[in-house]
Amino acid sequence: MVGAPVKERYYLGVDGGGSKCRASVADAQGRVLGSALAGPANPFHGVEEARQSIESAARGALEEAGLHSVSLGQLVVGAGLAGVNLPGLYQVMREWPHPFAAFYLATDLRIACIGAHQSDEGAIIVTGTGSCGYVRVGGEERLIGGYGFSFGDQGSGAWMGLEAVKAVLLAADELGPETRLTGDIADQLGVRGLALVERLSGKPSSDYASLAPLVLTAAEAGDAVATSIVGQGAEYISAMAHRLLSHKPPRLSIIGGLAERLQPWLEADVAARLSAPLGTPDVGAIMYARQEEGFGS
Amino acid sequence: MVGAPVKERYYLGVDGGGSKCRASVADAQGRVLGSALAGPANPFHGVEEARQSIESAARGALEEAGLHSVSLGQLVVGAGLAGVNLPGLYQVMREWPHPFAAFYLATDLRIACIGAHQSDEGAIIVTGTGSCGYVRVGGEERLIGGYGFSFGDQGSGAWMGLEAVKAVLLAADELGPETRLTGDIADQLGVRGLALVERLSGKPSSDYASLAPLVLTAAEAGDAVATSIVGQGAEYISAMAHRLLSHKPPRLSIIGGLAERLQPWLEADVAARLSAPLGTPDVGAIMYARQEEGFGS
Repeated sequence: MVGAPVKERYYLGVDGGGSKCRASVADAQGRVLGSALAGPANPFHGVEEARQSIESAARGALEEAGLHSVSLGQLVVGAGLAGVNLPGLYQVMREWPHPFAAFYLATDLRIACIGAHQSDEGAIIVTGTGSCGYVRVGGEERLIGGYGFSFGDQGSGAWMGLEAVKAVLLAADELGPETRLTGDIADQLGVRGLALVERLSGKPSSDYASLAPLVLTAAEAGDAVATSIVGQGAEYISAMAHRLLSHKPPRLSIIGGLAERLQPWLEADVAARLSAPLGTPDVGAIMYARQEEGFGS
Repeated sequence: MVGAPVKERYYLGVDGGGSKCRASVADAQGRVLGSALAGPANPFHGVEEARQSIESAARGALEEAGLHSVSLGQLVVGAGLAGVNLPGLYQVMREWPHPFAAFYLATDLRIACIGAHQSDEGAIIVTGTGSCGYVRVGGEERLIGGYGFSFGDQGSGAWMGLEAVKAVLLAADELGPETRLTGDIADQLGVRGLALVERLSGKPSSDYASLAPLVLTAAEAGDAVATSIVGQGAEYISAMAHRLLSHKPPRLSIIGGLAERLQPWLEADVAARLSAPLGTPDVGAIMYARQEEGFGS
C-alpha cells in the first residue's frame, strides 16, 4: 500500500453487559463524538451475540458521530465486557478475528473503574442486575464476587428478586413469615405460587432483577421479609466495601441501577467513604484503549 | 373384535424422577413379577424424554418378568412423576396419546406415600436430589416445597451442593469463613474459584447433589460452614415435618438418598415421629393403579 494515505484513527469505548452494549467513539485526542446502544455483549450468554453487539454498537456510534466514511478498521477499541473475568471467556473473546485496528479487552469492572475515577487506580462496587467489586492499586487488581445470581451476587437486583421469590414460596408453605411481596409479585407478574416457579425457571437474571424495585419499595415501607432481604444484601455490599478499602484505593464509587436506592442501607462508615463517579464506563473504555495503545507503542 | 379372547391385564407401577425411571409390573392380584430402570422421566426436563423413558421402562419390566407376549396395550399404568405438581406439566402428560390400556397419573410424592405406608393416607418427606413434603389425610392432600433447588429445596442434595459452592466462593473473597469444603470440592471436581462457576453453571441438579456427601462428611467432622449448611437444611426439614404432622397423618416417613444421613440432624421430636417406609414408590404406583381402576369401574 505504498503511497496510500494513512487513514485517521479513532477510539471506540465499549461497555458490554448482559442486557445491552454501549459504545462511544472519540477522536485521537479522546473527545467523544457519538454514542450508540446495541444488544447484549456478555459472552457468557453467547459469544457470537456479544461479538455482533459490539460491531453493531460500533457502527451505530460512527453513524451517530456523523463519521460515515470511517471504517471499523480505523477504530482502536477498548472493550470492557461482563463475563470475561471467567478465564475461558476471556480467551475466546481474545481469539476473535475482529474487524478493528486493535481490540483491547478488559473486564467491565476495570473500564467502569477507570471511568468512575478518570484514573487507572481506584475501587468500584457495581449493583445492578448483578453485583461485584473491583479494586486496582499499584498495578494490582482484585475482583470480588460477580459470580452470577445463582452463586451469589448478594445485594444485586437479580439476587433480590430471587430471594423475594424464595420468601414468597416459603410463606405459601407456611414455613416462612407472611410478606406483602406475595401480592406485589403476583401483581407484577400475573402469577403466584407454583405458577411463579414455571414463569421464572431458566429465565435470565434481568427477569429476576425486574422484581428488585418491588423489594426495595416493600423494605422502605417496613415489610419485615423485604427489609431482611435488602438488609442482608446491603450487609454483603458493606463487607465488600471494607474489603476493597483495605487495599487503600484513592477513591471508592458505587455504580449501577440499584446504587442510589441501596446507599441508605449501607453501613454509615461505608457511605461516608463513597465518592461520586466522574464518568461512565464507555468513556472509561476509551481511556483504557488510549492507555493500552500508549503502552503498546 | 367379536369372538377375540380377552387379553389378560397387568399393572405397571412407574416411579419417574429427574435422573431415572423405575417400573415394576404386577399381575391382576398385584404380585410384582419384574422391574426395570430407564432414563429420566421428569417432564420438566423434557416431555418427550419422559414419555420415552416410561415406555422403555415398561418394556424392560415386561422382559424382566418373562412376559414376552404381553403388549403395552395390556398394561394398566400407575405413574408417579416428578414435575407434574406443576399444573402445565400435569396437563401435558395427561394429554399423552399413550400406548397403554390406561394411564393414571399422579405426582411422584403421592405414589411414594402410598408405597411407604401401603395406604393412601400418610405423610412423607423426600430428601434426595431435591426435597419436598407430602401429606394426604381424609382425601385431602398438601404438597410442601419441591420447587427445585434454585427456588428452595432446602435440605436436599442439590441445595447442599449449591450452598457449599456459595460458601466456598464467599471464603475465596474473604467475605466468609474458611472451610474445608474449598479443598474437598476442588478435589472432587478438579476445579476451584472462578473455574468452579464455569464448571457448574447451567448444570442439572444432580451435578450439585453429587457434592452433598462431601458437605455431610465435613459437617460430621465439625467443619463450621458445612455444619451450618446441614443444620439449616435439617431445620427446614424439621419445620416441614411439623407442618405435615399438623394434618395428623397416621404415619410419617422420610425417604430419598439423603434420608439416612440427615436423620441425626433433625429435631428429636421429629425423629421420634418417623416410621420406616414399608415399600418402594414403584410398588406404591402399582397400588395406585389398582385403586384408580377400582374407582373407575
